[in-house]
Amino acid sequence: MLLARGMLIVLSGPSGVGKGTVREAMLKESINKFKYSVSMTTRPMRPGEKNGVDYFFCSKNEFEEKIRQGEMLEYARYVDNYYGTPLRYVQDTLASGNDVFLEIEVKGAMQVRKKMPDGVFIFLTPPDLSSLRSRITHRGSEDSTTIDKRMEKARQEIKMMSNYDYAVVNDEVPKAVKRIEQIVNSEHLRVSRVIDSYRKMIGDK
Amino acid sequence: MLLARGMLIVLSGPSGVGKGTVREAMLKESINKFKYSVSMTTRPMRPGEKNGVDYFFCSKNEFEEKIRQGEMLEYARYVDNYYGTPLRYVQDTLASGNDVFLEIEVKGAMQVRKKMPDGVFIFLTPPDLSSLRSRITHRGSEDSTTIDKRMEKARQEIKMMSNYDYAVVNDEVPKAVKRIEQIVNSEHLRVSRVIDSYRKMIGDK
Repeated sequence: MLLARGMLIVLSGPSGVGKGTVREAMLKESINKFKYSVSMTTRPMRPGEKNGVDYFFCSKNEFEEKIRQGEMLEYARYVDNYYGTPLRYVQDTLASGNDVFLEIEVKGAMQVRKKMPDGVFIFLTPPDLSSLRSRITHRGSEDSTTIDKRMEKARQEIKMMSNYDYAVVNDEVPKAVKRIEQIVNSEHLRVSRVIDSYRKMIGDK
Repeated sequence: MLLARGMLIVLSGPSGVGKGTVREAMLKESINKFKYSVSMTTRPMRPGEKNGVDYFFCSKNEFEEKIRQGEMLEYARYVDNYYGTPLRYVQDTLASGNDVFLEIEVKGAMQVRKKMPDGVFIFLTPPDLSSLRSRITHRGSEDSTTIDKRMEKARQEIKMMSNYDYAVVNDEVPKAVKRIEQIVNSEHLRVSRVIDSYRKMIGDK
């Protein structure tokens, strides 16, 4: 096989959709060898957690210094703590020809998209979004405030989705994992990802 | 599931790469339900062939009239006969939500690309293209004219490939078929192909 640059795979979606569960199943069962990028945080380590496995733990000053130095691929502040993805690990892993798997929040994914537009951006879709149509049809059976809230949520989810390459419904975790694997395998066959290797092979480029 | 427009899948590649064999295996074994678009030709029917199965057979006048009316999605003339893909069948099948599978020559594929840019264009790659590197390394063992010819052929193949979305190596037919199936499944999850259905569902757009 031809050596190509690794691929960045970003899994994201609305909160509560089950990103973490799909990511864990993905990394455990997948025959593809992804490198999972461990996030960095300033929140205190909890009992049982390990530095470098669950998170890279650091101080607020260290995190802010990394932001200033441009060493974070993406980050966000929740309540009083920072969470983010260190850039270096991602860059080095891609350069060595390995795929990197990121599971992050929607806002973070949009930061990554700007910096690494050749990544594969996958939006995990709540199953109730695709079943919404039948619920609307049976509108009489639910009160209108519930329906209106759900409609507004759906509208926001569809808006988020529009910024991604693929939409994967998380109806059942093993099915979602299989769909993501197919996307990854398929993206590896993209002409835009392999043609440089071919050109180099014959000495062109 | 949401009803979406069918997808046009175009399989092409250099002559002799085994497009026909892969297409036959594809349509026989695939769990995906493709509709295969039967080509039209002006060459005489051969014993055992059936009109509408192997080809749609017609006269040169009829074919030229169809070209004039814009009823051919793509066509070419080989020796003294026309070969081409009638547009109507492809359009109707896509509109009914079914995928259409075309297996055509490189020049025809480029005509289709212009008319239907949202199709999925797959380039079937000769296995000796990806193994060329090792052959070049052992250059001493082959005479230089053979190597030069092979290099020129490779250069042309890579140039053709650059106009496609995906490159699938035809090393073994079942493997090539599996890769194409993954591409098709994956393309069905593209946000650009599904988002309109979601928007319609909530009454937007």
